[in-house]
Amino acid sequence: MNAAPVEFWFDFGSPYGYLMAEHIDALAAAHGRHVRWQPMLLFAVLRRLSMPPPLEHAPKHDYLLLDVERSARHLGQPYRHPSRFPLITPLPGRMFHVLAERDPPAAAEFARDALRAAFRDDAALDDADLVAGLAARHDTRSAAQLREAANAELARRALADAIAEAAAHRVFGSPFVRIDGEPFFGVDRLAQIEERLAGRLAPCHRLEAP
Amino acid sequence: MNAAPVEFWFDFGSPYGYLMAEHIDALAAAHGRHVRWQPMLLFAVLRRLSMPPPLEHAPKHDYLLLDVERSARHLGQPYRHPSRFPLITPLPGRMFHVLAERDPPAAAEFARDALRAAFRDDAALDDADLVAGLAARHDTRSAAQLREAANAELARRALADAIAEAAAHRVFGSPFVRIDGEPFFGVDRLAQIEERLAGRLAPCHRLEAP
Repeated sequence: MNAAPVEFWFDFGSPYGYLMAEHIDALAAAHGRHVRWQPMLLFAVLRRLSMPPPLEHAPKHDYLLLDVERSARHLGQPYRHPSRFPLITPLPGRMFHVLAERDPPAAAEFARDALRAAFRDDAALDDADLVAGLAARHDTRSAAQLREAANAELARRALADAIAEAAAHRVFGSPFVRIDGEPFFGVDRLAQIEERLAGRLAPCHRLEAP
Repeated sequence: MNAAPVEFWFDFGSPYGYLMAEHIDALAAAHGRHVRWQPMLLFAVLRRLSMPPPLEHAPKHDYLLLDVERSARHLGQPYRHPSRFPLITPLPGRMFHVLAERDPPAAAEFARDALRAAFRDDAALDDADLVAGLAARHDTRSAAQLREAANAELARRALADAIAEAAAHRVFGSPFVRIDGEPFFGVDRLAQIEERLAGRLAPCHRLEAP
């Protein structure tokens, strides 16, 4: 796998991010690509882009409730809408970087577990014990050590850097995939991502990475 | 075809509405359904819903320019982005209703022609002669008569009624398809619309028509 990794940007509180997370690794691998998982905090990225938060208007919010369940059925994935929504996601975002500093694939495994916990099992991702327990499955450190590391300056800085990088690339939603600088917003772009990776859809150069 | 018609809401200035317009009739017919074409003015509907206009932020606007061309290639449709964008669309909206009052299928044919003119041939849909000429292909009245009718109170009232109905159904984007009250926003929902019409995707009842 020599080509540049596919970038997978997401917020841990994004239902469509969860749906994408179940597909992106296999899709990229089928075309000889690794995936760089990159969690951010969407509200913070949007603030940097001077854009309003998503779903602040009832018609779109209510539509999402319906559409995400339908999209999950369409994709054949289990889905349970969180009883508290939106989720509070800085903690898993920081924990991801605690793991990624040592082992990026382990961090991606943690992220998939956390997204499943949130969108299948109604877990609260601001529960420090729960998040540390999920992380400890994929790291040699104890849950207590990981919990401490996720609150340390290094993890906060790593998440802040990811937010700044997302804003620089105009990552205005979740999930957001970038292939050689070309942006794909939304899990509904899976088919186009596959065509692009397979070389059946020419690269779009109108919008390149800044 | 006994079942209720599939509702196809769109704005004449919507690139994704043009993409959907090329598919929706055949898709519905394959499952024994007619389509009720229903143009509205999206900015007016959004104002009624107290929602901001789409694409007011540069990252989303610039992404659309790329995404709509890519989506057109994905769907195998020609596409040329209008040299003046956004389009000014009250005139084709009113003209649609001038034709629909006598012959709804003819109005739908006019709508498809107008969308193709805008998004393949860079036609300005605020050009009264052009719009009347397109309409005259599908009506026994002359272009001059149609042009006059599109400026009359009856046509203005019909478009205003469509806007009010769209807002009542929370049609917050274009294209927006409703099947037995269930909403599908975006041309990227074509696959789900097909599954729903084929009975392979259970109806979603969380959001019913008001």
